[in-house]
Amino acid sequence: MKLKLLFSCFIAAGIAVPAFAQEPVDAAMVQKIREEGLNHSKVMETAFYLTDVSGPRLANSPGLKRAQNWAVNQLKTWGMANAKLEAWGKFGKGWEVQKNYAAITIPYYHAIIAIPKAWTPGTNGLIKGEVMLLKADSAAELEQYKGKLAGKIVIFDTKAPTERTWKVDAARYTDEELAEMANAKATPEGPRRNAADAAQMATFRKLRAFRATLSQFLVDEKAGLVLSQARGTDGTVFTTNGASYADTAKAVAPELETSSEDYQRIVRLIKGGQPVQLEADIKTQFISDDLQGYDVVAEIPGTDKKLKDQVVMIGGHLDSWHAATGATDNAAGSAVMLEAMRILKAINFKPKRTIRIALWSSEEQGLFGSRGYVANHFGDPKTMELKPEQAKLSAYYNLDNGTGKIRGVYLQGDSAAAPIFKAWLEPFKDLGATTLTIRNTGGTDHLSFDAVGIPGFQFIQDAIDYGTRTHHSNQDTYDRLVQDDLKQAATIVASFVYHTSQRAEMIPRKELPKPQRAR
Amino acid sequence: MKLKLLFSCFIAAGIAVPAFAQEPVDAAMVQKIREEGLNHSKVMETAFYLTDVSGPRLANSPGLKRAQNWAVNQLKTWGMANAKLEAWGKFGKGWEVQKNYAAITIPYYHAIIAIPKAWTPGTNGLIKGEVMLLKADSAAELEQYKGKLAGKIVIFDTKAPTERTWKVDAARYTDEELAEMANAKATPEGPRRNAADAAQMATFRKLRAFRATLSQFLVDEKAGLVLSQARGTDGTVFTTNGASYADTAKAVAPELETSSEDYQRIVRLIKGGQPVQLEADIKTQFISDDLQGYDVVAEIPGTDKKLKDQVVMIGGHLDSWHAATGATDNAAGSAVMLEAMRILKAINFKPKRTIRIALWSSEEQGLFGSRGYVANHFGDPKTMELKPEQAKLSAYYNLDNGTGKIRGVYLQGDSAAAPIFKAWLEPFKDLGATTLTIRNTGGTDHLSFDAVGIPGFQFIQDAIDYGTRTHHSNQDTYDRLVQDDLKQAATIVASFVYHTSQRAEMIPRKELPKPQRAR
Repeated sequence: MKLKLLFSCFIAAGIAVPAFAQEPVDAAMVQKIREEGLNHSKVMETAFYLTDVSGPRLANSPGLKRAQNWAVNQLKTWGMANAKLEAWGKFGKGWEVQKNYAAITIPYYHAIIAIPKAWTPGTNGLIKGEVMLLKADSAAELEQYKGKLAGKIVIFDTKAPTERTWKVDAARYTDEELAEMANAKATPEGPRRNAADAAQMATFRKLRAFRATLSQFLVDEKAGLVLSQARGTDGTVFTTNGASYADTAKAVAPELETSSEDYQRIVRLIKGGQPVQLEADIKTQFISDDLQGYDVVAEIPGTDKKLKDQVVMIGGHLDSWHAATGATDNAAGSAVMLEAMRILKAINFKPKRTIRIALWSSEEQGLFGSRGYVANHFGDPKTMELKPEQAKLSAYYNLDNGTGKIRGVYLQGDSAAAPIFKAWLEPFKDLGATTLTIRNTGGTDHLSFDAVGIPGFQFIQDAIDYGTRTHHSNQDTYDRLVQDDLKQAATIVASFVYHTSQRAEMIPRKELPKPQRAR
Repeated sequence: MKLKLLFSCFIAAGIAVPAFAQEPVDAAMVQKIREEGLNHSKVMETAFYLTDVSGPRLANSPGLKRAQNWAVNQLKTWGMANAKLEAWGKFGKGWEVQKNYAAITIPYYHAIIAIPKAWTPGTNGLIKGEVMLLKADSAAELEQYKGKLAGKIVIFDTKAPTERTWKVDAARYTDEELAEMANAKATPEGPRRNAADAAQMATFRKLRAFRATLSQFLVDEKAGLVLSQARGTDGTVFTTNGASYADTAKAVAPELETSSEDYQRIVRLIKGGQPVQLEADIKTQFISDDLQGYDVVAEIPGTDKKLKDQVVMIGGHLDSWHAATGATDNAAGSAVMLEAMRILKAINFKPKRTIRIALWSSEEQGLFGSRGYVANHFGDPKTMELKPEQAKLSAYYNLDNGTGKIRGVYLQGDSAAAPIFKAWLEPFKDLGATTLTIRNTGGTDHLSFDAVGIPGFQFIQDAIDYGTRTHHSNQDTYDRLVQDDLKQAATIVASFVYHTSQRAEMIPRKELPKPQRAR
């Protein structure tokens, strides 16, 4: 009866599961894990060190190094084995802000909210000058500014983004949204490219080409400072990079990503015939002494003779953007994964398979830390040449969607994992984790594993204010962490890791992907 | 039949209206006003000059003077009579920010979002130093810091306010909320003070006394800079004053109202045993050359022999706080009132009664501009000694609740005005203005008129994000103005003013209030 009910339940959820699959759950161990994770948590303390104490953790920055070193030491303190920094390959230059001041001085004084774009240079001390509104959509139109920009502050006639949304900033998944995910057949295929797409693509390419031209023009003309409009409102400023981190990167002009309100005020004034003067003092520092990228790794070694060479991995990226301390992106995921390791150690668990944590770097620039690690250990997705370790990694679990609690798992197309995860989620119904979706989710490090045929999963997490306020913004600070959510996540991850490490078989795999080169 | 229907409608709305009161409405003139106000509006242009061009408009600041002078000139340009600045009495010093820079430098660099409190001094150039966490709730506890604060940066162990509300920032009144207001019998009487209130009051007095002690201690000890926590999250910082504007004001220490996220980061670090260093360069300017406060006034003179000495007034305060350009508080109301005057002039209206606009100053410090004007022209609410002009002012209409459109009128207890306003609102049903409430509303300049027995009204306005984001914050900028709402408000005000100026009788009055001294 129970099995039948379970079966029909899965049918309802759109995922076909064989009726004989009754995955065992160790209720006593789950209880131990819950007790440690929910009632003796250290996750907020960990998050404090990763955020407030370490600072911004841009790839290869001093802040990231502080956090990496703290994590290695903390993992050692907790008794993990093989805790270390592991080089994954060449990344490029580190970079950090060392002074950031900009203010309107005419028609009246007003300090603006603005953030230097990552990997852009500073102003070489305090500069002052009139802001020039540059209107050009082509190289030809740029010509009129030749010889006029040296030392000047430049702004563009960019449209205001500051529309009220009349929506809440922070929200959790509704039951309806979760049901929709559970009932999904698969991630919808994107529409085939058509003529309209081709036209759009051509426009985009043209725009990108012009941006490169513009960037070079601003350098050649020795523009003193460029203001670009940031996404975000109300003092929230989303940041990006303004130049390449490569050691061979071309020079760019100093560039400030400016809050939309301050940006639009300047644009309105100039367009209204009111001259605007600005003063700014931006100092940024490039760090080139070590171009290698590193991941933090540590283990709880397996103890079963036959299985200890097999591995279950958990991870998340530790690097962040530079305008805040990357609390939800992704100190949250890093702290949860560290906490999951701590929980398992605290209850003195001796796993059959080896449990390994990895905290990636340079995720924000293209999942480089995990891709490099995967290339070094497991295989090359371009050729599908695999290494022996590939066959021994049961699964990789990732967390990188903010501070929100776990609501379930993206199966990433691995339908055979559904009955297993269904059983493992069962003890966490009361904590809101119930949903399996066959869908893929992208944008983070489980993809690096998935690309070489290793089961790689990102959990479904409540968004809270990830999209509206924190993701890559100057507001991604410790304040945004929801303590109860992080405790819940660490507890569930620890339980998943426990069960994966003890399971008779490894997590079933999808068909091996085709080599990327052949696709 | 129509009257009967009207009557039952008023019953439903909780306001008893005599069945014979059928107030005339001039439909043709309403149409003219709508055409000018909705289709040929200048309200956004006016708002641009009051906000972006003038800058922050703190009482007696250069920004306010710019806006006042612009308004006087613009009123003249539009052809108003008697446009001028009118002194209302002594206010105190002007003040403005001339440099505002502060950043954490240790454990890593991070420029903070913080605003000097109004009327506080600067730092006398760049200062650097460790931040000291001061824990004291009494003068005795302060003793431990004696001799230790000179030049130091001081912070307090204040609780974090950064709770997610999970509510929308911006909203309009719902039909239910409007119905509740319409059905109200009167503003609920506050509960009588009891023993618990007395205890609370005593606590408050103690706290206030300690604050004064603390403030003096910080000055005596020559603290270099004080950080206090601002209300607001996500980069939104609400500001206040940190000292008196009086020319005789006591000295205070420099004080920065710091965004809650930056403030809490510093507090967490220090409490976590991590020293924090800050650098700051704050320059503020006091302006003492003229301590008088001024209101902007202008008129469209009455043309009816018998009625031209009678007046209808409209107004709103033009002064703002200093962290932004006071767009919703209250450039919005000022721009709408200026626009209402412009509309009436543009349609070449020659009123029977004189129409007068007044844009107040020093409202934020206690409705001083309107109180002073009322004292000079109409009477003294303390003694209820009235001047002849008091008998000749039909009504005063105020706008000061943000950018939101008009949804109706607070009758301020003047139930005899209900049938009149009901009729006058009728042509604006399609624009969402329908509600009369017998309730009082407070906090702004109509109170100064109400206090001497003159019908004074504030319109009901949609809140939008007034309470959550803009009211007294660093985000109260032009971007927050809702163009369609301001057009609607100006159109309705112009129509109200038209009808008030032409009406056979003045607006009926409530019983004269008792002298405040006698209450």
